[in-house]
Amino acid sequence: MARWQPDSALRLTEAALALFGERGFDDVTVAEIAERAGVTERTFFRHFADKREVLFAGGAMLQEVMVGAAASTPAGAGPLETVAAALDAMAGVLEQRRDFAHARHAVVSASPELRERELIKLASLGDALAEALRRRGVAEPAASLTAQAGIAVFHVAFGRWASERSDGLARLIEESLAELRALTAEAS
Amino acid sequence: MARWQPDSALRLTEAALALFGERGFDDVTVAEIAERAGVTERTFFRHFADKREVLFAGGAMLQEVMVGAAASTPAGAGPLETVAAALDAMAGVLEQRRDFAHARHAVVSASPELRERELIKLASLGDALAEALRRRGVAEPAASLTAQAGIAVFHVAFGRWASERSDGLARLIEESLAELRALTAEAS
Repeated sequence: MARWQPDSALRLTEAALALFGERGFDDVTVAEIAERAGVTERTFFRHFADKREVLFAGGAMLQEVMVGAAASTPAGAGPLETVAAALDAMAGVLEQRRDFAHARHAVVSASPELRERELIKLASLGDALAEALRRRGVAEPAASLTAQAGIAVFHVAFGRWASERSDGLARLIEESLAELRALTAEAS
Repeated sequence: MARWQPDSALRLTEAALALFGERGFDDVTVAEIAERAGVTERTFFRHFADKREVLFAGGAMLQEVMVGAAASTPAGAGPLETVAAALDAMAGVLEQRRDFAHARHAVVSASPELRERELIKLASLGDALAEALRRRGVAEPAASLTAQAGIAVFHVAFGRWASERSDGLARLIEESLAELRALTAEAS
């Protein structure tokens, strides 16, 4: 009986990212990913529905972290402060997986299909964040507006972090939030 | 020789929207749209690549209007003021086609595939708006941040306008912009 390998998902993820980086997402097969990871295709499909899911499987966890942080922000915090706390929690998770996040970003950026999938994932994060704000008593359209502006801040900061391969996503998010405040404080 | 019908694109669009509204986007064929419009399938394909394009063909024009308005905003205007002018120009176009825009929104909202396509279209509008700001000398990340926040404002206002089937998209955009200013002015 084969030994259960708790790290096969991790090894598959690393193998997939390496192969996508070398040859592009489109030209890599599941069989090649499994071979590079030293597991069978069947093992691949125990962890992932397809090769795209290797890149997007972490999204659900990221969303949970974000929603959890929004929910546990002190009751007196306003909508934007709640969003800032939620984004900061996501930054914490992503900074712990910096190498993965940066390599993944390079692969996603190179593929129109994956870029579209990423936009849709970001929009889902925005919907979940708006819902978290409504649960805290924030009315519409303020909830959606703050959530979507927050996702814009995250998107811009994340893009800088990943393309500059820099440290400190949390700091870049803070900077972008401060910049959004300054931009919207401009005389109208 | 058949008379050239300058209004066949319009009739095809109206026929498609009516059929999508009655039976859902997925269950309508190009043949049925052409039949309802009283034209041949060949005429349909002279105007549209597929049935989805009937709903998205207007996007390029909307983007031109938006970018043109951003470019023609007085030189002294700041980034958010420029974005406000660009959104106001889009509102003008959409208000002139209110019935189409509202019916289209109902069809798009009912289909996950079309909702995704709409998100991707919105993201393209955001990219074009950021590029228009950079051409006016706005640096990054301010250009992307203002553009994406502006698209968030547009998205929220458009959703209210279309689902409430109300007048005055321009007014709702103004309200959302004012709300974004208030939210970001919140004590941090």
